[in-house]
Amino acid sequence: MGERLYEGKAKIVYRGDEPGVYLMEFKDDATAFNGQKKGSITDKGVVNARLTARLLRLLEERGIPTQFLATAGERMLKVRELAMVPVEVVVRNVAAGSLCQRLGVEKGREFSPPLVELYLKDDSLGDPLVNRHHLRALGKSDDATLDRMEELAGRINEVLRPFFRERGLELVDFKLEFGRTPDGEIVLGDEITPDTCRLWDAATRESLDKDRFRQDLGGVEEAYAEVARRVMDGG
Amino acid sequence: MGERLYEGKAKIVYRGDEPGVYLMEFKDDATAFNGQKKGSITDKGVVNARLTARLLRLLEERGIPTQFLATAGERMLKVRELAMVPVEVVVRNVAAGSLCQRLGVEKGREFSPPLVELYLKDDSLGDPLVNRHHLRALGKSDDATLDRMEELAGRINEVLRPFFRERGLELVDFKLEFGRTPDGEIVLGDEITPDTCRLWDAATRESLDKDRFRQDLGGVEEAYAEVARRVMDGG
Repeated sequence: MGERLYEGKAKIVYRGDEPGVYLMEFKDDATAFNGQKKGSITDKGVVNARLTARLLRLLEERGIPTQFLATAGERMLKVRELAMVPVEVVVRNVAAGSLCQRLGVEKGREFSPPLVELYLKDDSLGDPLVNRHHLRALGKSDDATLDRMEELAGRINEVLRPFFRERGLELVDFKLEFGRTPDGEIVLGDEITPDTCRLWDAATRESLDKDRFRQDLGGVEEAYAEVARRVMDGG
Repeated sequence: MGERLYEGKAKIVYRGDEPGVYLMEFKDDATAFNGQKKGSITDKGVVNARLTARLLRLLEERGIPTQFLATAGERMLKVRELAMVPVEVVVRNVAAGSLCQRLGVEKGREFSPPLVELYLKDDSLGDPLVNRHHLRALGKSDDATLDRMEELAGRINEVLRPFFRERGLELVDFKLEFGRTPDGEIVLGDEITPDTCRLWDAATRESLDKDRFRQDLGGVEEAYAEVARRVMDGG
């Protein structure tokens, strides 16, 4: 394992042994509210590595380019070298979380078409909501890149939503991050897990995601394990 | 004067005596920080009515459709009946105000092209920043309307910025509101005043606008009067 390139709240990225390859390690650390709440979720790293591997593989099968190459141990993935775009793309199928209070929308309201938001990835600023003018003016991204990211985000939603639904899970909203390969291709990076998706039990509407940690609902480990079980077992 | 249709923080709108005509009265009341700070600026209503009349007339001369019909007394304008679009369009030529802290941008930085932002006009929510997805999902506006509003906002900036500059004033940023006439045309409504524009003295970079009230800088009345003098006298 090579040089540590990046350590975030939930993952560490190392340079791999081959050129163009990174290793992504998933930690058990959990944070919420821009790092104001900190904790740990037992085996989260293991669950999230498995889920990300499964879901990125699924997306690759459906023609979506991703960072995924292979699994590499319990909580580690081999991924493609990417220069990350410092923008979070959020897709919302159903109203939940901060959006409800900010815009006066009742929790559970369906958005059709899904609502797409861009956030500047900057911990020191608390990842503010932005528009394309902001990202251009700050030199963070350009229209061609954002067009591609939003197009891919829409296609990813069209793959993931029915996939989860067949497994009794409602994909309420999720956050994606993209990066550029050394040859300039925009591909999906980062993770797809209950840290980055809101997932509700389709029948009970119960949260099976990080909201259990954010809101101290208990059963956090069990929720992550349940999502993993349904995704891995296929229902 | 007919029925009172609307009373906002700085203006009252009445139904006029003729069909399709409203009367807009400018108050001396001043508020800031979403109504948390309240006060009064002597003769602001008179100054703002005069400025709005002058600037909307200027825009009409340059082919921009506006709500303006005529002056009607010291602090009153005769305007066209409009169904207002509940969206504020903000155009920023230079970084100032809340944007600087939110995005980590130094005050005074020039944006070229200008930065355009959309805010949902809703006092109870504090006029949150939104994108087009939000406005569509909430049924507040549609793409054709927003396209037209953004196009007009850009043209308005191209008229106003040199107009102010010839008068020794830097148009830092400004907020516009648009409405729909009974026959469906989107036209500029509301006001253009030191309440809704940031205007700096071009030489000294001193604020000549509501920031003097917001930040307790003193000389508020004098700043509004100075803007009126330069705009009316032509420099």
